[in-house]
Amino acid sequence: MSILDQIHSLGLSLPAVPAPIAAYVNCVRTGNLLFLSGGLPIDGDTKVIGKVPSAISVEQAKEGARLCILNRLAVIQDEIGSLDKVKQIVTLNGFVNSEPDFHGHPQVINGASELLVEIFGDKGKHSRTALGVAALPLDVAVEINLVVEVED
Amino acid sequence: MSILDQIHSLGLSLPAVPAPIAAYVNCVRTGNLLFLSGGLPIDGDTKVIGKVPSAISVEQAKEGARLCILNRLAVIQDEIGSLDKVKQIVTLNGFVNSEPDFHGHPQVINGASELLVEIFGDKGKHSRTALGVAALPLDVAVEINLVVEVED
Amino acid sequence: MSILDQIHSLGLSLPAVPAPIAAYVNCVRTGNLLFLSGGLPIDGDTKVIGKVPSAISVEQAKEGARLCILNRLAVIQDEIGSLDKVKQIVTLNGFVNSEPDFHGHPQVINGASELLVEIFGDKGKHSRTALGVAALPLDVAVEINLVVEVED
Repeated sequence: MSILDQIHSLGLSLPAVPAPIAAYVNCVRTGNLLFLSGGLPIDGDTKVIGKVPSAISVEQAKEGARLCILNRLAVIQDEIGSLDKVKQIVTLNGFVNSEPDFHGHPQVINGASELLVEIFGDKGKHSRTALGVAALPLDVAVEINLVVEVED
Repeated sequence: MSILDQIHSLGLSLPAVPAPIAAYVNCVRTGNLLFLSGGLPIDGDTKVIGKVPSAISVEQAKEGARLCILNRLAVIQDEIGSLDKVKQIVTLNGFVNSEPDFHGHPQVINGASELLVEIFGDKGKHSRTALGVAALPLDVAVEINLVVEVED
Repeated sequence: MSILDQIHSLGLSLPAVPAPIAAYVNCVRTGNLLFLSGGLPIDGDTKVIGKVPSAISVEQAKEGARLCILNRLAVIQDEIGSLDKVKQIVTLNGFVNSEPDFHGHPQVINGASELLVEIFGDKGKHSRTALGVAALPLDVAVEINLVVEVED
């Protein structure tokens, strides 16, 4: 089964490739590594907004983390043509729009990590840094960037 | 025209290579990749200080982001001898010293991104993560690190 | 002298390899690079907790940064079999659980940087980004991730 079929079998689909909201590009390839820009939990009119947990719940922010991954996968597919060429998700940085006394960042970012493993299996097992930041662009609840190894 | 000439044609010049303010080095090369330390908006007596936007405006912080890039370029030149050997700016992380309710981090970091494209053209087009952090060393307004691919 | 002997000669030892606290792995290798997950200052019942400097001092947080490095080294040894195969510590990101008006992040992260140089000598000299974040998982005082180049 292709990775795209696997995504569909989970009841999911890839959103449109997001336009960068400023003067940069979504992805740069160097050798067999893709360095992806920080993705936001936005898909059309769906925007996962607010500081956790005062303005948005952990569960909602976790859903936002899943959405970040889906649009990052759209970027990867756009860059290399097929998600089947992903060799390994190498590392993931997950930044949560966090109240100073919130400590559940791992639970939020698990939305991203668990989805990567559901989609890619062992190839989706990545190293990770999860933490809470003071504020994020557009007041989104979570921002996620990735480094991904691809086939030659 | 060399990259250094291009910098001069923009009315800019490279500052002195900054001394790391602690027990680390400015840059490490691995293969054809340079991993640069986080650069601060400091050049001699010029220091772009303060939390955005309460203590310093978006425009001033954006100027700080440009200054970070200029001293990062000084580091690259010092490391590889010439900026003409830069093959691609791969990725940039821009950390803004941010009030919890500020969301204009992309505008601030555009100071860095736009300057890289003005200087390097397509080679300056990078992936990027911009976000707001609780505090930065020396209370600077912005801190930026880079991964850069260089010629053999 | 082996790196492990050097660690012991400093009166230190490697802790157990920590279990990731969520759905990710401690380390992914791509080519000759290891990308390590963010490590926390936890070793058994020892946990370096709290926001700096209101709940925990700079000196205590610096000790936490050392502890992060020791468990990152345990991860590296587990991944590649021996710390003697480390070719270069490439880059380090140090995130301090920071009050908004604290600016001494370099002093905290020096606990990590200085220890790497004590242990690895020139191979331990890395590029670095140190900054203050709003909150960290489990309310730890500091979180550190690394990119490390290893021998073939």
